[in-house]
Amino acid sequence: RGQVQKLVESALFRNTITILIVVNAVTLGLDTFEAVPPEVRYGLRIFDFAVIVIFAIELALKIYAWGLNFFRSGWNIFDFVIVSLSILPGAHAFQVLRSLRVLRILRLLHVVPMMKRIVEALFKALPGMGAILAVLGVLVYAGSVMATTLYGRTDDPDVHALFHDLPASAFTLFQVMTMDGWRNEVVQKVMDDGHPYAWIFFLIFIFLASFAVLNLFIALIVDALQA
Amino acid sequence: RGQVQKLVESALFRNTITILIVVNAVTLGLDTFEAVPPEVRYGLRIFDFAVIVIFAIELALKIYAWGLNFFRSGWNIFDFVIVSLSILPGAHAFQVLRSLRVLRILRLLHVVPMMKRIVEALFKALPGMGAILAVLGVLVYAGSVMATTLYGRTDDPDVHALFHDLPASAFTLFQVMTMDGWRNEVVQKVMDDGHPYAWIFFLIFIFLASFAVLNLFIALIVDALQA
Amino acid sequence: RGQVQKLVESALFRNTITILIVVNAVTLGLDTFEAVPPEVRYGLRIFDFAVIVIFAIELALKIYAWGLNFFRSGWNIFDFVIVSLSILPGAHAFQVLRSLRVLRILRLLHVVPMMKRIVEALFKALPGMGAILAVLGVLVYAGSVMATTLYGRTDDPDVHALFHDLPASAFTLFQVMTMDGWRNEVVQKVMDDGHPYAWIFFLIFIFLASFAVLNLFIALIVDALQA
Amino acid sequence: RGQVQKLVESALFRNTITILIVVNAVTLGLDTFEAVPPEVRYGLRIFDFAVIVIFAIELALKIYAWGLNFFRSGWNIFDFVIVSLSILPGAHAFQVLRSLRVLRILRLLHVVPMMKRIVEALFKALPGMGAILAVLGVLVYAGSVMATTLYGRTDDPDVHALFHDLPASAFTLFQVMTMDGWRNEVVQKVMDDGHPYAWIFFLIFIFLASFAVLNLFIALIVDALQA
Ligand code: NA
Ligand code: NA
Repeated sequence: RGQVQKLVESALFRNTITILIVVNAVTLGLDTFEAVPPEVRYGLRIFDFAVIVIFAIELALKIYAWGLNFFRSGWNIFDFVIVSLSILPGAHAFQVLRSLRVLRILRLLHVVPMMKRIVEALFKALPGMGAILAVLGVLVYAGSVMATTLYGRTDDPDVHALFHDLPASAFTLFQVMTMDGWRNEVVQKVMDDGHPYAWIFFLIFIFLASFAVLNLFIALIVDALQA
Repeated sequence: RGQVQKLVESALFRNTITILIVVNAVTLGLDTFEAVPPEVRYGLRIFDFAVIVIFAIELALKIYAWGLNFFRSGWNIFDFVIVSLSILPGAHAFQVLRSLRVLRILRLLHVVPMMKRIVEALFKALPGMGAILAVLGVLVYAGSVMATTLYGRTDDPDVHALFHDLPASAFTLFQVMTMDGWRNEVVQKVMDDGHPYAWIFFLIFIFLASFAVLNLFIALIVDALQA
Repeated sequence: RGQVQKLVESALFRNTITILIVVNAVTLGLDTFEAVPPEVRYGLRIFDFAVIVIFAIELALKIYAWGLNFFRSGWNIFDFVIVSLSILPGAHAFQVLRSLRVLRILRLLHVVPMMKRIVEALFKALPGMGAILAVLGVLVYAGSVMATTLYGRTDDPDVHALFHDLPASAFTLFQVMTMDGWRNEVVQKVMDDGHPYAWIFFLIFIFLASFAVLNLFIALIVDALQA
Repeated sequence: RGQVQKLVESALFRNTITILIVVNAVTLGLDTFEAVPPEVRYGLRIFDFAVIVIFAIELALKIYAWGLNFFRSGWNIFDFVIVSLSILPGAHAFQVLRSLRVLRILRLLHVVPMMKRIVEALFKALPGMGAILAVLGVLVYAGSVMATTLYGRTDDPDVHALFHDLPASAFTLFQVMTMDGWRNEVVQKVMDDGHPYAWIFFLIFIFLASFAVLNLFIALIVDALQA
């Protein structure tokens, strides 16, 4: 057991896994091209299968070496879930589950120390965002209920698609927050659908949401500078 | 009276109200779905009515307990206006007034202490924005009058809709400031309507407005860092 | 002469002018509405004429009071140019010159002390932007010449309009920098016009330009914080 | 050799080259206009040829003066590559190579000291961005492979064009990151192509990518402030 522990903690072991993830990322990328000849694609799939097996053995070794301590690290659980998703019986049958295998590439985010530092710094920034994200969430939620009530009951198919229920309205308000086609694809259509003063609702929403996002941003800068 | 005061200031009272707002937010959300069967919708409306009654009693108790001091807090006035809008006679007849009942969800913004802190911080940032928002307002106002004079008197229905009077031009210039479709939906249409040099006006406007917004942003960061 | 000096420097004089600018801004705004009845519009124009006369007298008094020192202040020259543009012979004949009268509203930016401070702060930020704006200018200039050479000589009317000469290409590259419709209105059209690798050019341009703009922004923040 | 060294390091030499680059930038700009008469265009091309010859002589003198030390400076290599691209045999035959001659304008970026400082500051900011750009790269790469697997195998020509292979998906995800037409030109099309829950994938991607870009930005500000 001590020897297995030494093995999985050795630089060689780690580097081998890192290289395997990178090569696997490349083969998964190659596999997306339509012009890949069937025999090459067959080879890529074989390799992919081999990688899954190796990753499963890697995790088994680590669990054997560290016991339940293995699951004390968030990153280990991350790896465990991602590799499990790859070997799940039936995972190869459903397109969505099959596409989740690609998440193995994300193992790079903590296997490479330089990236691990960045990702952990990003995670540390999350709590400072919590309260302001909650405020933004309340704004979008209340705004979505209001928009559905005001604009969703309509025969105009475009406006109906934009605001027919809570998720639709929330998605549309998110679109408005990103300023993507907010005038002609959203506000103008609502105004032309018998709500000439709809711009008031949307301008207030844009101002409140932008102000909240701006302050989210400023809070992160202040946090980073005072760290 | 002292006992009522104790009651409305108790943690239990506050938590009950908080939970009620959250549950009411959920029921208002459910009410937006078109597939809700009529009997469920009827139940949701009954619950909504009960919530309004409870909120009205809550406010009555608070006013009884604190007297006119109740109205010294901006948040209490906020609650009072929002609950009044819900029980206004006729409020159920007009769609706009009915939709305002949704604002009750916003009570969360000060009932939950974590969010209250954020919202009050946002309010404190407002005065520092006043002068620069005034400058931006003067820019947009002068720009709107100029754009209406230059481009609004036209037979092209698109350009007429964009710039036919001051509010239309102000709305269009706001669209240009958010960079949403500014070239093809606005500037190009004006240029094609016999104003080949209109890009000069809009580029100057974009530069001035972006520069003002940028400095608004910087002022907020500097304020936050020196606080 | 000393008395005139006292007069033009008095708070009463200044406030009267400020109020006059605000009222004039309102009447210029009202004048943009199409539904204004002819007799009201006539009244607005009379008032506008009166304001121009009063502003001209104001400037004459100030020049008499201060002599050539009047022209030592940038703001005085700003007022002088703006009022001159209003009384220029023929100014009422040409739409562009007539629209420049609206610039009188901008006098507010220095007559109101609060706004004057902001605008002067903005001006002070300009030199710190000079060098980086020059770099950005060189990027856009070189990019525009390249884009015209590569994509401008074409029979596709859309692509020709986007890149047929230097100003057209510069305008289009500015559109790309603002991320407005950059893919479908610009890059995709060029790619479909026989340049399948045009995305390389535009991605490099977007990265370089965004990076320069980002650093412009950071330079302003650092400047503001170290002031 | 010492005299040549003195010459190429003299202010006169440097200023002459600077002026030549500026004038050449102007002539290259003039050359983009379609209305240029053939004889003027001929003159511009002659001048352009003369400039290339002078730049080649300039570099030859510098290499003679400094020997192999010439190639120790990144900027000298930059000049060398750019001038070589201009005189490459056949460079005039291929449109792409011909357009690269325009890069000579970029010599301004280091010949003018003010701009050189800016560009070198930008380069110094790059290492601090490395790790976070790597994280962003992994996100976009994994997201592109997933999007191709999930949405690329389709008969809808629009969705196929957006996601048919890795580069197409990466380009589309970059478009989504810039928020340009992300809803109607990308997400809505995928949702209408039999993936009603595609918004989940794109919202997660937008959140992760925006968060990474935001932190990239904050890292640069913190770096700049602590320098
Ligand atoms: Na757009
Ligand atoms: Na946009």
